Amino acid sequence: MLATVLHAPGDVRFEEVPEPKIEKPTDAIIRLAATCVCGSDLWPYRGLNQIAAPLHMGHEYCGVVVEVGADVKTVRPGQFVVGSFCLSDNTCPHCRHGFQSSCEQREFMSGAQAPYARVPLADGTLVATETMPDDDLIPSLLATSDVLGTGWYAADAARVQPGMTVAVVGDGAVGLMGVLAAKQMGAERIIAMSRHKARQALAEEYGATDIVSERGDAGVARIKELTGRVGADAVLECVGTGESMLQAIQCARPGAMIGYVGVPHGVELDGQMLFFSQTGMQGGPAPVRRFLPHLMDLVLSRRINPGKVFDLQLPLADVAEGYKAMDERRAIKTLLRV
Amino acid sequence: MLATVLHAPGDVRFEEVPEPKIEKPTDAIIRLAATCVCGSDLWPYRGLNQIAAPLHMGHEYCGVVVEVGADVKTVRPGQFVVGSFCLSDNTCPHCRHGFQSSCEQREFMSGAQAPYARVPLADGTLVATETMPDDDLIPSLLATSDVLGTGWYAADAARVQPGMTVAVVGDGAVGLMGVLAAKQMGAERIIAMSRHKARQALAEEYGATDIVSERGDAGVARIKELTGRVGADAVLECVGTGESMLQAIQCARPGAMIGYVGVPHGVELDGQMLFFSQTGMQGGPAPVRRFLPHLMDLVLSRRINPGKVFDLQLPLADVAEGYKAMDERRAIKTLLRV
Repeated sequence: MLATVLHAPGDVRFEEVPEPKIEKPTDAIIRLAATCVCGSDLWPYRGLNQIAAPLHMGHEYCGVVVEVGADVKTVRPGQFVVGSFCLSDNTCPHCRHGFQSSCEQREFMSGAQAPYARVPLADGTLVATETMPDDDLIPSLLATSDVLGTGWYAADAARVQPGMTVAVVGDGAVGLMGVLAAKQMGAERIIAMSRHKARQALAEEYGATDIVSERGDAGVARIKELTGRVGADAVLECVGTGESMLQAIQCARPGAMIGYVGVPHGVELDGQMLFFSQTGMQGGPAPVRRFLPHLMDLVLSRRINPGKVFDLQLPLADVAEGYKAMDERRAIKTLLRV
Repeated sequence: MLATVLHAPGDVRFEEVPEPKIEKPTDAIIRLAATCVCGSDLWPYRGLNQIAAPLHMGHEYCGVVVEVGADVKTVRPGQFVVGSFCLSDNTCPHCRHGFQSSCEQREFMSGAQAPYARVPLADGTLVATETMPDDDLIPSLLATSDVLGTGWYAADAARVQPGMTVAVVGDGAVGLMGVLAAKQMGAERIIAMSRHKARQALAEEYGATDIVSERGDAGVARIKELTGRVGADAVLECVGTGESMLQAIQCARPGAMIGYVGVPHGVELDGQMLFFSQTGMQGGPAPVRRFLPHLMDLVLSRRINPGKVFDLQLPLADVAEGYKAMDERRAIKTLLRV
């Protein structure tokens, strides 16, 4: 089959690869309904992560099960499923504590920017819908697999509660999903930091009440001004740079939690600065599996529409352009039709 | 009067200083019932904090009010009071959120290793008892002022819940108070890291169920072994070095919170390490004022006995020996009789 392979920074190819096969009795094979490009795919694309060998790209996925291994019990061929980008057994102690993204058997999904994909640990990873979902819900269901689940975790880790003032650092797709999550969790005021018109508009559609276009010290000053010099009750850090992390810490009031979901690149935190800021932090790869049933239910009952975050849709064959558009910030997030 | 002044590392003098006076209408003057030496007093004593001018030492205190400023409304002369080492107005937004240690008007107490002390922001800082407490309760009431409040905050910030397995890094007075706090909050299993017999015994008396005397990788391995390779549900970091912080992170299970109350000295945290550990962190100077009424009640009703942490009692005049004994780890914590 033809699928997506990253050979070197900037070098995404749609080329022949072997079709996936059941390798372990706990695997499933799915036919993708749609897939997409993740902000984290841009790290190796931009040469910021080492590429040791050609990478089979893609870790966000939903589709129909076509085959399962001998030990798979909870999903069967013909079912529509969504899974997390973190593969988990959902039975180990870390999974039972709701941190499936630190599962003792954790693997990271790969190879999903393709017509077919192998999903290891299928029982612990996949969640099936009761019936075949309407076509127009596919983008939103796809979003639950990573980008929505990750924005949701940012809000969860930041302990967003009803009535709170929440600041969201980062206007990428995850940041926008963070806005949606904060809104669903009852935040009264949601301050989105963004200087891009289209992203500002989508943030407002998802529930942002205030937009701050300043950055750095000016951005911090603006948030302090908007919050009566107090700072936000909870902050979602959705970028992963040293600058964005510092921004998040400085926007938070003492006692606030920062949920950080941008994979930190070159971030060093000074212990004493963090101590006296009195802000709390929790982050990591999102335990999407914990939230998946709830998020899928919100989508299937049409209470949320995270799929709007895909502002570029391309055929899978044009995946290279999908990466390029995101790299150049012409697109927030690219959906790939299979 | 004669009081405690630190002139240079290792140079603690008990010498003549001016008696404290009401300087602002929000001040109170108290006559100390007892005072003590804090682990944090050892930072400048050891030359690890700069000393720009002679320091009037002491920030843990309880005693009888002798005079109040014109604006003071909640305490009056003759009352027995305890206050936090962080002075706060207890009305600003940070105080109302329970983070009085980040009060907009915050000051740090000083000059309490003395017969008399000035307490700024008296209304927001001091809590009076209903009647004069029994003498034997003085050490425990003194402990609520900082060391117990700080250990309590470590457990609070680590989100200790009933049934949890809690690890405590650091067997100083704060770590021992952390054990007491975790026990009060319903922890089922409390693992104290200590290699000193006397401290181990006191940790066990305060509720520790397991003692780990190993440090570094061996200490982490032992805690993993004790928790079925999972890690602790909550970790209290009560030291403040890079080594102890790393120990805390590595002992925690993914999703666990680390409450860190040792003032970090030379601690740099790698963002990506912290991210993938998936542990959360919250720390800072303890908002003792939030906990003070509850902790004083626990002491006055004799349900806890934090005063046992003072294993050396000296007359105030011997304060230099009190510092020396703690510096040399001959004493856990020195109480100074006034």
